[in-house]
Amino acid sequence: MTTYLLGIDLGGTNIKIGCFDTALKLIGKISVPTDAEMGPDFIVDKFYCASEELLKQNDLSLADVCAVGIGSPGSVNLTEGVVAAAPNLPLFKNVPLKEMASRRLGKPAILENDANAACWAEHIIGAGKGSDHMILLTLGTGIGGGIITDGRLIHGPSGGAAELGHLIIYPDGRLCGCGQNGCVEAYASANSTAARATETVRGGVRSSLETPLKEHGKITCKDVFQHAGHGDAVAKEVVEGTAKALALLCVQLANVTDPESIVFAGGMIAAGDALLGPIRRFYKQTIGHVFNKGSLEICFAALGEDAGIIGAASLALTACR
Amino acid sequence: MTTYLLGIDLGGTNIKIGCFDTALKLIGKISVPTDAEMGPDFIVDKFYCASEELLKQNDLSLADVCAVGIGSPGSVNLTEGVVAAAPNLPLFKNVPLKEMASRRLGKPAILENDANAACWAEHIIGAGKGSDHMILLTLGTGIGGGIITDGRLIHGPSGGAAELGHLIIYPDGRLCGCGQNGCVEAYASANSTAARATETVRGGVRSSLETPLKEHGKITCKDVFQHAGHGDAVAKEVVEGTAKALALLCVQLANVTDPESIVFAGGMIAAGDALLGPIRRFYKQTIGHVFNKGSLEICFAALGEDAGIIGAASLALTACR
Repeated sequence: MTTYLLGIDLGGTNIKIGCFDTALKLIGKISVPTDAEMGPDFIVDKFYCASEELLKQNDLSLADVCAVGIGSPGSVNLTEGVVAAAPNLPLFKNVPLKEMASRRLGKPAILENDANAACWAEHIIGAGKGSDHMILLTLGTGIGGGIITDGRLIHGPSGGAAELGHLIIYPDGRLCGCGQNGCVEAYASANSTAARATETVRGGVRSSLETPLKEHGKITCKDVFQHAGHGDAVAKEVVEGTAKALALLCVQLANVTDPESIVFAGGMIAAGDALLGPIRRFYKQTIGHVFNKGSLEICFAALGEDAGIIGAASLALTACR
Repeated sequence: MTTYLLGIDLGGTNIKIGCFDTALKLIGKISVPTDAEMGPDFIVDKFYCASEELLKQNDLSLADVCAVGIGSPGSVNLTEGVVAAAPNLPLFKNVPLKEMASRRLGKPAILENDANAACWAEHIIGAGKGSDHMILLTLGTGIGGGIITDGRLIHGPSGGAAELGHLIIYPDGRLCGCGQNGCVEAYASANSTAARATETVRGGVRSSLETPLKEHGKITCKDVFQHAGHGDAVAKEVVEGTAKALALLCVQLANVTDPESIVFAGGMIAAGDALLGPIRRFYKQTIGHVFNKGSLEICFAALGEDAGIIGAASLALTACR
């Protein structure tokens, strides 16, 4: 019986794959490192091997799978199934990922921008259920976005819409992977949050974050939130900076599409209220009083870290019919 | 024969009214000061008196008019025909402008955000003709915007979308009429361009702009561009600041909806290449190289200052049918 779907969430750091039934119930999931520096062919091989492994763990095989949905970071041309460019996958330039994955797995494949896929999942069964005007922001290696207005995802003429990590919040600020200066991604992604902490500690400011830096040679975003929770001043200031950057992004977006809700997804939301609280606080402090946008709901994805694989699977569903 | 339309463009400074035939050919137009401080009733009276005057000048009367379209600044609720709020019309709070105008003029009326009306005009017969993905920015007393994606105007759930003058480009920067700090409108509208020049000259920096300040008690945006054209260093720097702010706005919007073109409209475009040239230059310098957005067309409205009244009239057309 070919009644299962695979949803693949390709990230700059990890590839997550979920196996779902056609009611989008999660059967099982797996996560493997992306090894982005190995390039597209290697990554498509990983899709295959990790899918086989996941299916085996659940007493299934590829014969049981009807279609595969892939969420990829960067500019995705839906019609052509091509990843045009992705800052966190530097070797992906006009990669026909849909066709490559379809051939390697022997299944129909659907390719969408990863954040769009997650946004659609939250719209149909998650935090944005019932709202035709919502925005999703994924906080991971980079920052991605998906925009729904009037119940439809915005793609732009060639899939370049909703690159929401690349709104400039501090002109002439930190250099971003996209080539611009001062993007919100250069401040508030997991990588940038960790980088800002590392720079401060390396700059000689005393902090309990010296310990992970000495012990593991690096500071992670998780370290930053953990040490902020324990009262470290440097970590607290870095968290405030991340929240302020994300609040500024929310203000911009409130003034562009006027969503009813902005939903945060991705690995960083594990930080919980330590992240959501200050984002809401900075948003309220910053948003203008004239346009009555103070009531915007800022919340976390209901589907948690699974939004990406659920969204990808929901797209795969369209290829089964 | 009731075969004429009135298009009213309500601005913070002037009310422009155009009389059109049903093929949207302009028959005649008139401009009167808004006197915004006099409030909604007074302004609706002006709609009536100026319309009568305009029609008389063209050997017509209200009996020849089929419907009236109104473009208003601020947040407009289309369904209810209400101006919720407008920073440049401080007395407009939840004003049922559609009904008020309809009653005073004795005609069916349609109310839309002014920039949306202008955007629609440029989309159907102007600079954005043939493009389903465009953005219009009006540069006047304030900065308004209209967004078309997939051939549709974005309104948001209650008309609060496309408040594009209120994207923050310099956090903690100049105070804007909307209550936020650092909005693009606080730097690059006609009023803010004039204000920035005035502040510099009043601050004691030598400039040929001292002359209009002494002679007329103020510096206008037109003065700034004129003196920049004659080589005045202060005026040139203010113009660069305005262009840079608008270019930053274009970068933000390119990353949100990925339009094919961004069209500038409103009184300030009379400045011509002295404004358009540096906007294009700063945009190219700022936009990231990864997402292939360097080819965005940045141009002026083909319908010039008439886009507002044409757009309003095109909406009135829908009320005639």
